[in-house]
Amino acid sequence: MKDNSSYLFGGIEGGGTKFVCAVGNETGEILAETRFPTTTPDETLSRTVDFFKEQIQALGPLASIGFASFGPLDPQPASATYGHILPTPKPGWTNADVVGPLQASFDVPVSFDTDVNGAALGEWRWGAAQGLDTFIYLTIGTGVGGGGLVNGELMHGLLHPEMGHIPLPRDSAVDPFEGNCPFHGDCFEGLASGPAMEKRWGQKAETLPPDHPAWDLEAHYIALALRSFVCTLSPQRIIIGGGVAQQPHLMPLIRQKTQATLNGYVQSPAILENIDSYIVPPALGGRAGVLGAIALAQQAF
Amino acid sequence: MKDNSSYLFGGIEGGGTKFVCAVGNETGEILAETRFPTTTPDETLSRTVDFFKEQIQALGPLASIGFASFGPLDPQPASATYGHILPTPKPGWTNADVVGPLQASFDVPVSFDTDVNGAALGEWRWGAAQGLDTFIYLTIGTGVGGGGLVNGELMHGLLHPEMGHIPLPRDSAVDPFEGNCPFHGDCFEGLASGPAMEKRWGQKAETLPPDHPAWDLEAHYIALALRSFVCTLSPQRIIIGGGVAQQPHLMPLIRQKTQATLNGYVQSPAILENIDSYIVPPALGGRAGVLGAIALAQQAF
Repeated sequence: MKDNSSYLFGGIEGGGTKFVCAVGNETGEILAETRFPTTTPDETLSRTVDFFKEQIQALGPLASIGFASFGPLDPQPASATYGHILPTPKPGWTNADVVGPLQASFDVPVSFDTDVNGAALGEWRWGAAQGLDTFIYLTIGTGVGGGGLVNGELMHGLLHPEMGHIPLPRDSAVDPFEGNCPFHGDCFEGLASGPAMEKRWGQKAETLPPDHPAWDLEAHYIALALRSFVCTLSPQRIIIGGGVAQQPHLMPLIRQKTQATLNGYVQSPAILENIDSYIVPPALGGRAGVLGAIALAQQAF
Repeated sequence: MKDNSSYLFGGIEGGGTKFVCAVGNETGEILAETRFPTTTPDETLSRTVDFFKEQIQALGPLASIGFASFGPLDPQPASATYGHILPTPKPGWTNADVVGPLQASFDVPVSFDTDVNGAALGEWRWGAAQGLDTFIYLTIGTGVGGGGLVNGELMHGLLHPEMGHIPLPRDSAVDPFEGNCPFHGDCFEGLASGPAMEKRWGQKAETLPPDHPAWDLEAHYIALALRSFVCTLSPQRIIIGGGVAQQPHLMPLIRQKTQATLNGYVQSPAILENIDSYIVPPALGGRAGVLGAIALAQQAF
């Protein structure tokens, strides 16, 4: 039997603005990495293929490749549009076959999933979700999305979750901003993404001081969304990543307001007594995405 | 090897107002059944035990028992409070051990879960969810609740879903009724349960004529909730049972409004083209609960 740690895995964190490609080993150690802007599908995937070809020359063959991508996408191997991006506002990417070019270039298994499912798997393998079978990973940044594991497997169902698009209550007397989601106006993403904050307050979220009322309102919406996810899914933990959620003053507010809006209804010590370890940042920090892609590759192997 | 169809299973549909106890076989055929009001835990469980003792005398031994109960409850066998009802407004039932008396009387496996998870399992075994691995079963009646399977297993996670308690947007200019949930006011259950409808309109839901504006508003709230569940869980199908949802004019409104509020965002033919087979009533009708309890028993065996 071969020593597993000698296997190499390719990981792609395919974001709407940049791609990160890496080669890692069984333990999640990254041996090579590159990043470049997301342009057209052809150009972006060519650079991806070139990177892995070079790394195979330098480091040796890959056992498998994991591709954690922006969406919406089709992750179901049995489907006719498997490995494609689905209709998206991102110019040029609607119906792009993004797994095909990888399969054509490398004769190894390719695992394809959403960026948030990838990050969830990375956190499960090496981060804040080790040992859990049901949890969610949310990202709150340029967009808002969520993935996770339920009953020990990545969430798919009909397609994949789109947690940023749940409806939330908004009191127009308190918050007259009508949201910026082109599909739903004031859904979770439409109210709480970075661009939504910027549009509401007229300045970039990261420039708003910690005592600005923006953060209280932001925590309010995130807490309502967490209550929705807790009541729907009953996760054992909630991991919140993404640029907006990285503001250090935000996490305590989110925890306090989530307890307040659940109002004691879910009788679990995890929520009533141990909220600090129930709602947490990613243990892998900004590395959750790329390590998640490596974890996806390992799962395909 | 024994012929499976000769095994007998006990099923308990434990509701807040009545208990239904039944003995069924492998194919879901019910051989004996009784129902009685839910009074104190002692009295109710004594009647339950007595029924099964009589049936064992008459029909033969049970292979296992399934108990699908009102909640909140603790369904996790490893927990110290497994088999107990958790704090509930229902007088006398808080912290009642409801599995203990069954285990003490019958030396067979007992499977204990929520009423909605039981009904979901019944629909998966014999009804509208056959062959699916990820779907939800909602009940909209005296209360509002949901359960289901994700990745082929019943939903549990931290405890179990409480889908009736997600927050929903409410436009107070259109609907000044502030909801009747003692925990959350205008959550899904607080806005859309039978008692909420009665309180809002001053008459029982079943007496409101089909052209009453109550039904349009009811379908509006249910559609918002379904959008929330679709975005969070990505179910392959949604089954809606319960007294309120049995109104025949309601289902078409729910389908139409769910498509409208999703607004084309989830690009699946199941939703865009085949909504009539995506949002459906229980194929087992009012038998979903008791057959679900039999299915739970079979799962334990």
